[in-house]
Amino acid sequence: MKKLDKITPWKENFAQWYVDVIKNGELMEYGPIKGTIIFKPNSYAIWENIQLELNNLFKTKGIQNVYLPMLIPEFFINIEKEHVEGFSHELVTVTQVGEKKLHDNLYIRPTSEVLFADLFKKSIESYKDLPLIYNQWTSVMRWEKTTNPFLRNTEFLWQEGHTVHANAMEARKLTRDMIKLYEKFLRKYLAIPTIMGKKTPKEKFAGACSTYTVEAMMKDGKALQSATSHYLAQNFSRAFKIAFKNKNNEDEFAYQTSWGVSTRLLGAIIMTHGDDSGIIMPPKIAPVQVDILELFSNKYPEVSEKVDELERWLSKKLRVRVDRSDAQPGFKAANSEIQGVPVRIEVGPKDLAENMVTVVRRDTFEKTRVNISKVREYVEELLIEIHENLYTQAKKRLENNTVIAYDYDSFKKAISENKFVITPFNGDEEEEERIKKETGATTRCIPFKYLKPKDDCTCITSGKLTKRFVLFAKAY
Amino acid sequence: MKKLDKITPWKENFAQWYVDVIKNGELMEYGPIKGTIIFKPNSYAIWENIQLELNNLFKTKGIQNVYLPMLIPEFFINIEKEHVEGFSHELVTVTQVGEKKLHDNLYIRPTSEVLFADLFKKSIESYKDLPLIYNQWTSVMRWEKTTNPFLRNTEFLWQEGHTVHANAMEARKLTRDMIKLYEKFLRKYLAIPTIMGKKTPKEKFAGACSTYTVEAMMKDGKALQSATSHYLAQNFSRAFKIAFKNKNNEDEFAYQTSWGVSTRLLGAIIMTHGDDSGIIMPPKIAPVQVDILELFSNKYPEVSEKVDELERWLSKKLRVRVDRSDAQPGFKAANSEIQGVPVRIEVGPKDLAENMVTVVRRDTFEKTRVNISKVREYVEELLIEIHENLYTQAKKRLENNTVIAYDYDSFKKAISENKFVITPFNGDEEEEERIKKETGATTRCIPFKYLKPKDDCTCITSGKLTKRFVLFAKAY
Repeated sequence: MKKLDKITPWKENFAQWYVDVIKNGELMEYGPIKGTIIFKPNSYAIWENIQLELNNLFKTKGIQNVYLPMLIPEFFINIEKEHVEGFSHELVTVTQVGEKKLHDNLYIRPTSEVLFADLFKKSIESYKDLPLIYNQWTSVMRWEKTTNPFLRNTEFLWQEGHTVHANAMEARKLTRDMIKLYEKFLRKYLAIPTIMGKKTPKEKFAGACSTYTVEAMMKDGKALQSATSHYLAQNFSRAFKIAFKNKNNEDEFAYQTSWGVSTRLLGAIIMTHGDDSGIIMPPKIAPVQVDILELFSNKYPEVSEKVDELERWLSKKLRVRVDRSDAQPGFKAANSEIQGVPVRIEVGPKDLAENMVTVVRRDTFEKTRVNISKVREYVEELLIEIHENLYTQAKKRLENNTVIAYDYDSFKKAISENKFVITPFNGDEEEEERIKKETGATTRCIPFKYLKPKDDCTCITSGKLTKRFVLFAKAY
Repeated sequence: MKKLDKITPWKENFAQWYVDVIKNGELMEYGPIKGTIIFKPNSYAIWENIQLELNNLFKTKGIQNVYLPMLIPEFFINIEKEHVEGFSHELVTVTQVGEKKLHDNLYIRPTSEVLFADLFKKSIESYKDLPLIYNQWTSVMRWEKTTNPFLRNTEFLWQEGHTVHANAMEARKLTRDMIKLYEKFLRKYLAIPTIMGKKTPKEKFAGACSTYTVEAMMKDGKALQSATSHYLAQNFSRAFKIAFKNKNNEDEFAYQTSWGVSTRLLGAIIMTHGDDSGIIMPPKIAPVQVDILELFSNKYPEVSEKVDELERWLSKKLRVRVDRSDAQPGFKAANSEIQGVPVRIEVGPKDLAENMVTVVRRDTFEKTRVNISKVREYVEELLIEIHENLYTQAKKRLENNTVIAYDYDSFKKAISENKFVITPFNGDEEEEERIKKETGATTRCIPFKYLKPKDDCTCITSGKLTKRFVLFAKAY
């Protein structure tokens, strides 16, 4: 077991706190190539739990998992013009095998729209073959200039859903259904509240007709785009000639969507719930839900016996880990805290003499002595309570730090205070660019719901009347 | 639903049968780049079930999942000499990003020994940090000249385990434990019997001290290497300087292993169990275990009601699919057969009037009328029976087609009949190469157990006395 390092207080230096917390939590190691990371067991297990729970939700929507090859031929990527412009500068390019030069370049997928487009083209003939609702879990590569563990890496893990439909309405509905599914997933499994909405044209996915997003607020007030869902309309199907015979036996281009979440979610979890003692894992996806600490068992063998019994008993329903090491009690507790395990049970000779154990919750540090016969029930309820508390804390923070600004001065002030700012704005891409330069804020989305603003508002930059309210924030 | 194509009888042309069966079973589509394939829902679901079951077995060995980046820097791969020689000609090479040339080449992992070596080097200081027992699920690339769906592709999915230990004995034991785990997995979950043994020096993994393998016999008599486990000794740890302080506080190079199975297993399943009606899925990893066919429900609405009820009831414990389409009963049955679903339940008005359904098993085509109240119990037992029957059939074939040859003439004859041949052989790599040229057979392994041969045997090529019995066969 490694010695724990000091964690910088998060209010003092959030970026350094983030690095300290990740390092101490044994979540990752830097990879051999700049911008890549190694997912160690502690972080990969979170991703596995996310996969498990999302796959269960996906099944209810009839989503089927597939796997497509990672390399994209040069001519494929050039077919959809807007799409290639969005990605070309960051494409990782294969030009040779061994010493032998290839005739055409190949690209490591930055996303797989064009690969799915080709598959769909081969797979559909008639409206009867539609819809196809596919998803894949994989890694993708984008050669980013500035990287940050989990948040932005040249290689990251994600799921990407790709669907094809016989009519626009069905595709549009699925696009919205998926962003709602993600909102629910973040709320119910990661205890992360978000603001759901539509991206402005500037911020939408390269090649999409419209992009929906859920935006979470990190502890420093910055936004993290946590999931997106794109309505691709016929953009790719026209370019790739994905046509089908419709009910009138006419050829028609198909309607498509794509949507995904990535290992950014690990960053979202850390920066939403963590504190100065380390990370805090939301109970439903925590790799370890309960740590059992065996204390002074070298002198009191009955402690070991009781720990074994507790482990067997609790493991039936929960993910349990036992620390049987000869480390000091304080060190064991700190180790459990720093790894963000939601609940720890301290089993020592004193408590045991009274048939009790001490249960400590990670989120509030509250300690409760519990009768052993009641431990399982107590811990199960406590895990639900911890989830709710984490969510409530995050929700309060989001609400308290989201404001409405009706003019540019109050907008600038609120952004400088790291708030989420909802504001009347109908500017174009250039206007967004100017605001970004002046304030550091970007448009996050046009929220579906928001604090009710006044009725007749004027755009903060143009002064023209507008009904479009846009969420701005500094963002990761 | 696509029209089903004719399947070539397997005894007539096994290679064509294989392609026909895969195509009809909707298992894959060719990818856009030569040698790559797309795993469609029907095949990816098998791989997901394999992942699920293997992960459960891995947990019992304390194996932890991780994820390492896919790109290997040039200088890494050149560190272990034998290893790089084994792979250099098939390395897929990244030389640029966008239009920008990289300073050093990067390789897409063909396997990740060197990446894990770097991680282990960073992770261990003392014997107290050992062992580390890691595994990752990922895809790898090897630019093969001749490819065959699932069996040999330029990109394939696999798991690769990598471990590091404080002493040789522990590492050697794990190497053997893992090959035994794989043997058991193939037997218990895929119903595939194998011959377990050690590779000859010629056939061992590039960079390993010794390689263990399980070799399965396909229906055409050819061998398929189905899983391998390598004892790497200190080969990589010396090259990468993976050292730790041992109990005597001396620096010592660590001991390593690696082991894996790949999507080749899908090929093994198809070519072990398939028949002239299509694939047959071993029940434990079958994506769909039970197909319920709704027959004549347009005229008899009570059929639909009963089907819904059966689905709810059976889904509690089994993976169930319902065919509610308006296709003909014969077409529905053929579709279920061709996809290898182990059991189908035909629900029609005639049977229903007597409170019965017809249960058909895929392996023997046997039909049984079963009272609805007993269906669940009946199907659960039938699935076990199907697994056992598939295994027994495959085991018989393996036993009946494995022979001992004491001289080169009978060896050649047996190989020409596509048998597995166990033979006294102590030749070197050149001898193996000569035998391959003359007969098409390669050494598969030195089996742990085998039909008891005579005591004093002479090597089939050198004529010298030997106790080394080697399994030869033509192989995929």
